Amino acid sequence: MRLVAILATLCLLAGPPAGLAADAEALLERARTLFAPIPTKPPELPGNPSSVARVELGKMLFFEPRLSAEHNIACATCHQIGLGGADGRPVAIGHGWQRGTRNVPTILNAVLNTAQAWDGRARDLAEQSGRPITSAVAMGNTRESVVATLRAIPGYRDFFAWAFPGEAEPVTFENIEKALAVFQATLLTPDSPFDRFLAGDLAALSAVEKEGLALFLDKGCAGCHQGANLGGDRYAPFGVVQRPGAEFLPPDDRGRLLVTRTADDAYTFKVPSLRNVALTAPYFHRGSSWDLEQAVAVMGSAQLGIDLTAEETRKIAAFLVSLTGRQPSIVLPVLPPSVPSTPRPRL
Amino acid sequence: MRLVAILATLCLLAGPPAGLAADAEALLERARTLFAPIPTKPPELPGNPSSVARVELGKMLFFEPRLSAEHNIACATCHQIGLGGADGRPVAIGHGWQRGTRNVPTILNAVLNTAQAWDGRARDLAEQSGRPITSAVAMGNTRESVVATLRAIPGYRDFFAWAFPGEAEPVTFENIEKALAVFQATLLTPDSPFDRFLAGDLAALSAVEKEGLALFLDKGCAGCHQGANLGGDRYAPFGVVQRPGAEFLPPDDRGRLLVTRTADDAYTFKVPSLRNVALTAPYFHRGSSWDLEQAVAVMGSAQLGIDLTAEETRKIAAFLVSLTGRQPSIVLPVLPPSVPSTPRPRL
Repeated sequence: MRLVAILATLCLLAGPPAGLAADAEALLERARTLFAPIPTKPPELPGNPSSVARVELGKMLFFEPRLSAEHNIACATCHQIGLGGADGRPVAIGHGWQRGTRNVPTILNAVLNTAQAWDGRARDLAEQSGRPITSAVAMGNTRESVVATLRAIPGYRDFFAWAFPGEAEPVTFENIEKALAVFQATLLTPDSPFDRFLAGDLAALSAVEKEGLALFLDKGCAGCHQGANLGGDRYAPFGVVQRPGAEFLPPDDRGRLLVTRTADDAYTFKVPSLRNVALTAPYFHRGSSWDLEQAVAVMGSAQLGIDLTAEETRKIAAFLVSLTGRQPSIVLPVLPPSVPSTPRPRL
Repeated sequence: MRLVAILATLCLLAGPPAGLAADAEALLERARTLFAPIPTKPPELPGNPSSVARVELGKMLFFEPRLSAEHNIACATCHQIGLGGADGRPVAIGHGWQRGTRNVPTILNAVLNTAQAWDGRARDLAEQSGRPITSAVAMGNTRESVVATLRAIPGYRDFFAWAFPGEAEPVTFENIEKALAVFQATLLTPDSPFDRFLAGDLAALSAVEKEGLALFLDKGCAGCHQGANLGGDRYAPFGVVQRPGAEFLPPDDRGRLLVTRTADDAYTFKVPSLRNVALTAPYFHRGSSWDLEQAVAVMGSAQLGIDLTAEETRKIAAFLVSLTGRQPSIVLPVLPPSVPSTPRPRL
């Protein structure tokens, strides 16, 4: 027994057996052709240059409940940065306790998606940022009312002038959207075990995570879930091979058809990113699966037409957990106070 | 003219005229007999020792929407640390969009109050912390449900064991309250201009702020608003001299009578702290005044039986603005993820 222990120790010191290391290197090469690491710095947004002022203003607005009709719902209410950038519920609860119709997508790494929302209705973060503010079921406000409120808060007038220098009237709805986009672009989660693996650290993934990655490639998951976000860059019908049950694909929501008005797009959705997926249950556009392994199994049958074994499902889920990156460290902003002339919450 | 300018410069170099300096020193002496600075370190809570672990756990719980029935309302939803520790609304909106009956009190410096809530119904922060969680109109949850939820989140099991070492089952409702209290006790706002004045910096208050302080003392405001929090340590009938209008004192809320069941306590409320009052409009227990100067004027007539002039009101309000301290710097906590066995939000 002692000899075995000594041999085992020697093996550990020597690294994994040559065959396994070669397998891992081959796996890494395959992975590098399909995936990319999460960048550590936010990408520049076209026509919306980042600055310290714009990021700080965007952060304030992200946590600002006075963007909503009753001054009680902020972006951060449903996009909780401490909960993987989502809200941990099937669908959000918004203005008047109305329920949304789709699961809240995470804002973490969302800047890396090619379009926003489950049906891609917003082409970028700036366009998306304005939508919940004026949505009747989300924040219930109007563009005019939000702008009037922020213009009547002296601290915001100063911050907008700092963030949008040279503009005669910097407090505009468009600038609210721009600042929110610039802040959200900073919400990246680099340095996950998978990112360290992609950078060449073969030991960053455990044996089961590597097996899961191999299955993820072999079974075809990466056909849709690829790129830096393992998703977020294309659309696919939910049930491309086998229509899932109504609990996962309720017939009343025809997905991207609502945007394109094209019959071909019925039940088509944006392929969601799998980054930090272990933090963002429940899954699918209705938030109908609370279990990552169940979600993997449903994807196998619905999208690939295969019945994954429990063992395969477990391994793929283990790989997906390795996509959890370093979560953003955010100092809560101090918001400028209202003054007597600031419009009050609608009651 | 040049001579005047030179003399003025000499005066500035020499400091304020001797008479004014003597006035300021006398004012400081008076103030020191009634007020105390906000401490820079949190006081120890009896039977609830602070620790790094307990503060960190308390912070997580403070931002934790899974304390509520539908997993969408946290302590931080209504006690916004970035908005002076309150919510900027007349009354809060809670579970099912129900409205509370009283204005949300700030949690900043609340540990320095001798009791919690407008009617003093909770003797300390720990007791107060549990109340909104199980209130039907606030977070709508039950003690059993909250404890079951947190016990089924592996990350919380670890954090509670770290924060309450040696306890066989550390995830209890009492420990939730204790951790929340220890975190909230850290939410102090020292170093306001008034605190620097109390520390001996006579120039920390402007001329008008000093005049406001003198009026605050001369007119009798400090009869109730004294101590470190300028309030929070006693009860007083609202309308002790002259009953204010129903917009400020609606007859349906009889205040502390609801706690003591004593007729003498009808329309009696805890004297609120005036710390950071410039950040926490609207004012009074119904959040019925949006203007600090109006609130000062109402207090003058209702509590002191005097009609303050507009000038006096303005000066007292200027002094009150000097009570805005250094706001807490809080790094948003990353919350541990739910797992498939975690109880789901009630829907």
